[in-house]
Amino acid sequence: MQDATVRSAGAIDGGLLRQYARVRGQTAALCAPLETEDYGLQGMADTSPPKWHLAHTTWFFETFLLVPELPGYRPFHPSYAHLFNSYYNGVGTQHPRPERGLLSRPTVGEVYAYRAAVDAAMEPLLERAETDADLAFVVGLGLNHEQQHQELLLTDLKYSFSRNPLFPVYGGDGTDLSAVRSRMAWREVEGGMRWIGASSAGFSFDNERPRHRHWLEPFRIADRLVTNGEYEEFIADGGYTRADLWLSDGWTEVRRSGWGAPAYWHQIDGSWHHYTLGGLRPVDAGLPVTHVSYYEAEAFARWRGKRLPSEQEWEAAAGEARGSSTWLESGAYHPRAAAGRDQLLGDCWEWTCSAYLPYPGYRPFNAELGEYNGKFMCNQMVLRGGSCASPAGHVRTAYRNFFYPRDRWQFTGIRLAQDG
Amino acid sequence: MQDATVRSAGAIDGGLLRQYARVRGQTAALCAPLETEDYGLQGMADTSPPKWHLAHTTWFFETFLLVPELPGYRPFHPSYAHLFNSYYNGVGTQHPRPERGLLSRPTVGEVYAYRAAVDAAMEPLLERAETDADLAFVVGLGLNHEQQHQELLLTDLKYSFSRNPLFPVYGGDGTDLSAVRSRMAWREVEGGMRWIGASSAGFSFDNERPRHRHWLEPFRIADRLVTNGEYEEFIADGGYTRADLWLSDGWTEVRRSGWGAPAYWHQIDGSWHHYTLGGLRPVDAGLPVTHVSYYEAEAFARWRGKRLPSEQEWEAAAGEARGSSTWLESGAYHPRAAAGRDQLLGDCWEWTCSAYLPYPGYRPFNAELGEYNGKFMCNQMVLRGGSCASPAGHVRTAYRNFFYPRDRWQFTGIRLAQDG
Amino acid sequence: MQDATVRSAGAIDGGLLRQYARVRGQTAALCAPLETEDYGLQGMADTSPPKWHLAHTTWFFETFLLVPELPGYRPFHPSYAHLFNSYYNGVGTQHPRPERGLLSRPTVGEVYAYRAAVDAAMEPLLERAETDADLAFVVGLGLNHEQQHQELLLTDLKYSFSRNPLFPVYGGDGTDLSAVRSRMAWREVEGGMRWIGASSAGFSFDNERPRHRHWLEPFRIADRLVTNGEYEEFIADGGYTRADLWLSDGWTEVRRSGWGAPAYWHQIDGSWHHYTLGGLRPVDAGLPVTHVSYYEAEAFARWRGKRLPSEQEWEAAAGEARGSSTWLESGAYHPRAAAGRDQLLGDCWEWTCSAYLPYPGYRPFNAELGEYNGKFMCNQMVLRGGSCASPAGHVRTAYRNFFYPRDRWQFTGIRLAQDG
Amino acid sequence: MQDATVRSAGAIDGGLLRQYARVRGQTAALCAPLETEDYGLQGMADTSPPKWHLAHTTWFFETFLLVPELPGYRPFHPSYAHLFNSYYNGVGTQHPRPERGLLSRPTVGEVYAYRAAVDAAMEPLLERAETDADLAFVVGLGLNHEQQHQELLLTDLKYSFSRNPLFPVYGGDGTDLSAVRSRMAWREVEGGMRWIGASSAGFSFDNERPRHRHWLEPFRIADRLVTNGEYEEFIADGGYTRADLWLSDGWTEVRRSGWGAPAYWHQIDGSWHHYTLGGLRPVDAGLPVTHVSYYEAEAFARWRGKRLPSEQEWEAAAGEARGSSTWLESGAYHPRAAAGRDQLLGDCWEWTCSAYLPYPGYRPFNAELGEYNGKFMCNQMVLRGGSCASPAGHVRTAYRNFFYPRDRWQFTGIRLAQDG
Repeated sequence: MQDATVRSAGAIDGGLLRQYARVRGQTAALCAPLETEDYGLQGMADTSPPKWHLAHTTWFFETFLLVPELPGYRPFHPSYAHLFNSYYNGVGTQHPRPERGLLSRPTVGEVYAYRAAVDAAMEPLLERAETDADLAFVVGLGLNHEQQHQELLLTDLKYSFSRNPLFPVYGGDGTDLSAVRSRMAWREVEGGMRWIGASSAGFSFDNERPRHRHWLEPFRIADRLVTNGEYEEFIADGGYTRADLWLSDGWTEVRRSGWGAPAYWHQIDGSWHHYTLGGLRPVDAGLPVTHVSYYEAEAFARWRGKRLPSEQEWEAAAGEARGSSTWLESGAYHPRAAAGRDQLLGDCWEWTCSAYLPYPGYRPFNAELGEYNGKFMCNQMVLRGGSCASPAGHVRTAYRNFFYPRDRWQFTGIRLAQDG
Repeated sequence: MQDATVRSAGAIDGGLLRQYARVRGQTAALCAPLETEDYGLQGMADTSPPKWHLAHTTWFFETFLLVPELPGYRPFHPSYAHLFNSYYNGVGTQHPRPERGLLSRPTVGEVYAYRAAVDAAMEPLLERAETDADLAFVVGLGLNHEQQHQELLLTDLKYSFSRNPLFPVYGGDGTDLSAVRSRMAWREVEGGMRWIGASSAGFSFDNERPRHRHWLEPFRIADRLVTNGEYEEFIADGGYTRADLWLSDGWTEVRRSGWGAPAYWHQIDGSWHHYTLGGLRPVDAGLPVTHVSYYEAEAFARWRGKRLPSEQEWEAAAGEARGSSTWLESGAYHPRAAAGRDQLLGDCWEWTCSAYLPYPGYRPFNAELGEYNGKFMCNQMVLRGGSCASPAGHVRTAYRNFFYPRDRWQFTGIRLAQDG
Repeated sequence: MQDATVRSAGAIDGGLLRQYARVRGQTAALCAPLETEDYGLQGMADTSPPKWHLAHTTWFFETFLLVPELPGYRPFHPSYAHLFNSYYNGVGTQHPRPERGLLSRPTVGEVYAYRAAVDAAMEPLLERAETDADLAFVVGLGLNHEQQHQELLLTDLKYSFSRNPLFPVYGGDGTDLSAVRSRMAWREVEGGMRWIGASSAGFSFDNERPRHRHWLEPFRIADRLVTNGEYEEFIADGGYTRADLWLSDGWTEVRRSGWGAPAYWHQIDGSWHHYTLGGLRPVDAGLPVTHVSYYEAEAFARWRGKRLPSEQEWEAAAGEARGSSTWLESGAYHPRAAAGRDQLLGDCWEWTCSAYLPYPGYRPFNAELGEYNGKFMCNQMVLRGGSCASPAGHVRTAYRNFFYPRDRWQFTGIRLAQDG
Repeated sequence: MQDATVRSAGAIDGGLLRQYARVRGQTAALCAPLETEDYGLQGMADTSPPKWHLAHTTWFFETFLLVPELPGYRPFHPSYAHLFNSYYNGVGTQHPRPERGLLSRPTVGEVYAYRAAVDAAMEPLLERAETDADLAFVVGLGLNHEQQHQELLLTDLKYSFSRNPLFPVYGGDGTDLSAVRSRMAWREVEGGMRWIGASSAGFSFDNERPRHRHWLEPFRIADRLVTNGEYEEFIADGGYTRADLWLSDGWTEVRRSGWGAPAYWHQIDGSWHHYTLGGLRPVDAGLPVTHVSYYEAEAFARWRGKRLPSEQEWEAAAGEARGSSTWLESGAYHPRAAAGRDQLLGDCWEWTCSAYLPYPGYRPFNAELGEYNGKFMCNQMVLRGGSCASPAGHVRTAYRNFFYPRDRWQFTGIRLAQDG
């Protein structure tokens, strides 16, 4: 078992040209198991087709580097600026998000040609960026952006595949049968003034900054994620039928959506199965529960007499965390059992009880890139720690992920905490 | 210019084996211009992907012939009975209609393999059917069913393509530049007792029967379809902004949907264009207006001081109609100008003012096939005459097509009538 | 037991002044059991508050008579033209229908003052109308209009009250305990050419005209309405769970709305009760079933191997019908058992299998009054025969009522028919 | 100009009996201007009718005091426990919130009788509570609860009235014509460790506790609320049409709702008017802008190059604040101009940039009362400072109000801040 953060560090050395090639190649490699028909799938408005991810990440380099920085560059196709802009109002109009799945054209082949053309055009810029810090920053942002879309490509595909009664198999090494079903233990963390946020070393997103002081009271945090077995107890105890366990909005959502188990779970002949990227499988009690909403995580915690950690508590607890069981490049595509690790990194994104808000003194990226993170700082909750689908470089302690409390299609899990 | 009804007669001779091969081959031929990516497109819940049409028409033969009639037949795939059943509750469950576009698997190749396997298995049954009238009836129904889906495949695809800002080109010989812009003239039709409905000769659907008496008052009917030019006058006269011209439900729909022109029309630099299967083109004033809802047809007629014909009036008027300008096999994929014809057959489905209801004495097909037509006899309006996308054999005077008054994605047009 | 049609004839003699006073007084009398708080209730967008009915019927006289015909007349209040216009786009804007229940002002007292002022202003016009046929026609239309709203006032109120767990009592003489549970018998009706539509004698709405010829095949019609007991058998036989019994749109509605019984039915301690204007009561097996949609009526008929009559069949069968058990002025406010009558008149509006469409040669009322009926001739089904809530004068054979196939809040019932 | 906090202190002395009488009487007094018809108005699902507020606050005392604590007490009516329970799943079922306006019964008179009966039954308990701290706590909570509903009664009524084109007048002393249009100035506040939350003296809600340490960086805060005049500049500068100014969810809401000004604003003959509880009036540039959502407050701040304060910053700044221009008992029913005050207390609830979350170490009230606040701690934003409709006792620095970021029907306003 390797160390994701070390591998991440490895991923960003070797010069920008090699980094660029590695990240771009990784995206294409993720598509190797796909049929042409799979590239266009959009299971719901929140998700995007694989082909769209391939094109959008390319559009990012074209729009924020080639067009402004490469003299004489002519866009690959006049409509792509509209088709593959996600949400950057500052740089133009956008094809409606819920209709990304209706774009059978450009074809898969044409999108790969787009990627190749942009990659070729990027070469001189990548060379210039070795000595131009501003350029290097945007290149680095583009690569981190593409890595974020690698994770989304996988989770979006899982959602789309899950709607097919044939339960297509993408891949992954499947259930870890040696899963250790250890008792949950508690680690005490001292209170006091802490520094929160990304340090200046290495790449970080604007939302991880500035590093700032935050006062913490003492608390205790679980030494592993909640397991499927523990979550099944919650279900068996009527967890989904007891209003007293839920936030008001959560209870509304439970009734509206008819939730009775995590996403992708199916009761077949009286026992729980779940759809994984490796296909339909029995639920293994020792694996971490995943694909739960914030509402479910919060209700589970209340049922256990605990709570979720704040993002600052989580970051304080994760200070020295190293290594993870599963991350994107590990190829598991599903979280594994704790097996002696605390799982703070990798496996599942961990819901915190913190709303996604700007840090004190927050400054968004410059110009149009300011839309990258800041405008989403409302109505969402912070998740920490990376998942089995996160590129190694994103499995780090300061990284702030965010989703709506009802969202379940990411590899989300539950970490319990309590007052000290 | 050929005669569609004569070609249709030709289409059903030559033995069932040859007919079967011809119709099945025609469906596949319609897909020749498609990219693999296009096969999965579902533009809205009312439409289906090309791949689904290919599979569903095959499922029809498998379900209603191979399974019950061919000893020892084993379904091609255990899940296809669920995936490709459209709405026959009597034979099992159905994949949700709005999610047909999420079935990237089976792949296009697998669906063609399904077609080939069913076609091979059908051979002995087709031979038996030459001397078994009951079997021959179901084969004939299956072929007519497949032809109906040929039209839907085209119109559904047109809708899906229309949502793509690239306006993909499917094909067709495009605008007829020699379009005659003749003045609309009126034909008088005598009143009296008429026989309505399909005669016993040749194939007919259950909803065309029984042939029955119907009393008609004298009336007059236009000698051609309403043109784009005439419809543009309606728009220019504020047709879409004057409540007094509309049925109450139509006016509600206009405001809800923001309609201001037929479907697929776009105002570009001050002039009307429309998306056709041949791509985006200027609207030609001499061509028949198409892709209008019943509400629009009815409002236009009121604006002109006329009305739409009843289906019985239409059938009486069409008694001797022969020949059409465009039908599916003509390869035009868009209606042409009248050019000396009355256009009662082909070009556009003509909205009548008749609700789709059972004829007096109506009996649905037997057993599960009873769901074919009867259960839709509510809330829809009858259209007559076939369109540029209708197989020649369906361009006939007794054929009853039906759609909701708000529907616009078929090749629908306007025929005016008035009291005699 | 009296004869409604005779009473109706009585209702329209005695001079316009007396007729006017009688009809207007009848509306106010219907409100006698109301608390001030009840006047504002609007249970759903399709219904209106009692206060609104009181004001709107007054607005009708003000708008179509006082304003155009009485020199120097000044509207009672400048906003009422907007507030109490229902749907007449030709005479101005309208307060949004779903927000009629938000008009706490004008108060009940102010609305009664409005009625009194308009009634006073009408006197000279009523006198003029005795010798002015055009004026008399609009007065007569206004009175018939007000009578239609008397029925709606009751049925809308019933709907609103039904949403209150206290099940308020309005009134009515309640369940007829002597209800005869007779076997359904069948009357044969000959086919042939029939005259359909209102004769020139007496008031009729535009949608009942012109009288015209219609060819009918022989048929048979049930001699009474379907009873609660018969309908309970349908429920017990799984009527609401068998897709094969339903129109496709009906089945969609059943699942969407969760219907499992007629409107207002509640299962309490294992037995059916229903909310009536007399309060919550046990369902009496011998009474006619009421508050069923067209979908339910049609499914019930299919379950019994029968069908619903067409409106022309119904009118032919009703040719000589006289007398009814319940109508508005009878004060029962709920249908009674057949008790030797065929119930063609009164008790329940009877769903026919006919779509609401213009008769051949239909001409709407003149000018703005043309919006009265014509613009609703789409998507609705015809009902015939009047109900326990219909004013006596509207319980007649040519009257065409119309509602959407999903509507259940009128006193609707089921008459079975079959081919002859 | 009086001091609201001092009056508040006054309001809670004098013994529980006198406090109870005073608060209960204040609720009834607020209804003095109402017509019977107004008591049932429910303008949208988020709001409740006045009658419902009158009954629900009474139900609170009945449910949490009379039933458990008064031996032999029999509920006033068996259905009221269901009808007037708001959201306490722990004590029983609830009438659906959006249908509170459909309860014409019980009548207004019956609800006042309910109030009188409960008030009478409370007397012995109130006496016992003088020496029973647990009882006194629930009494105090009930009174604070009733005061919260006094504010809601007014704001809900304003919303309902606003849907009536007659713009009914409730009352209030109207626009302050002497409004000072002073330049906005900035107060510097030092950073450092602060104590946040309610002190142990006096009543506080569970969500204001526990008092805890929080680290603050230095910041600056505006010395008054944003005015209508300043907000009109934002509108005139295209504020509602520039995506770059808005949070992503806010921009979605702007387009969905068609917002172009604060709630209740109408452009009449080219100038802005707004509906107030005193009727329709011209917008006065010097008055604080009110009825803006969080999204609008946040966008306005961005447009001005500022931000909103966090709730902790607000509380730190308000430490010494005293006095307010308007509060409920002041009878203004609309915010006034700053006029030399900083407006931190009263006038408008001030949106903070803090999500509504539990304080560190938060413990909800015991048992069923635990549902009072805790279950709403998701998806909402904190507002501080009280408004012109807040009872004096609720106009205090630790009070945490909370609403969804899209909500506009409270008296919400904008306070700007910036980093120090």
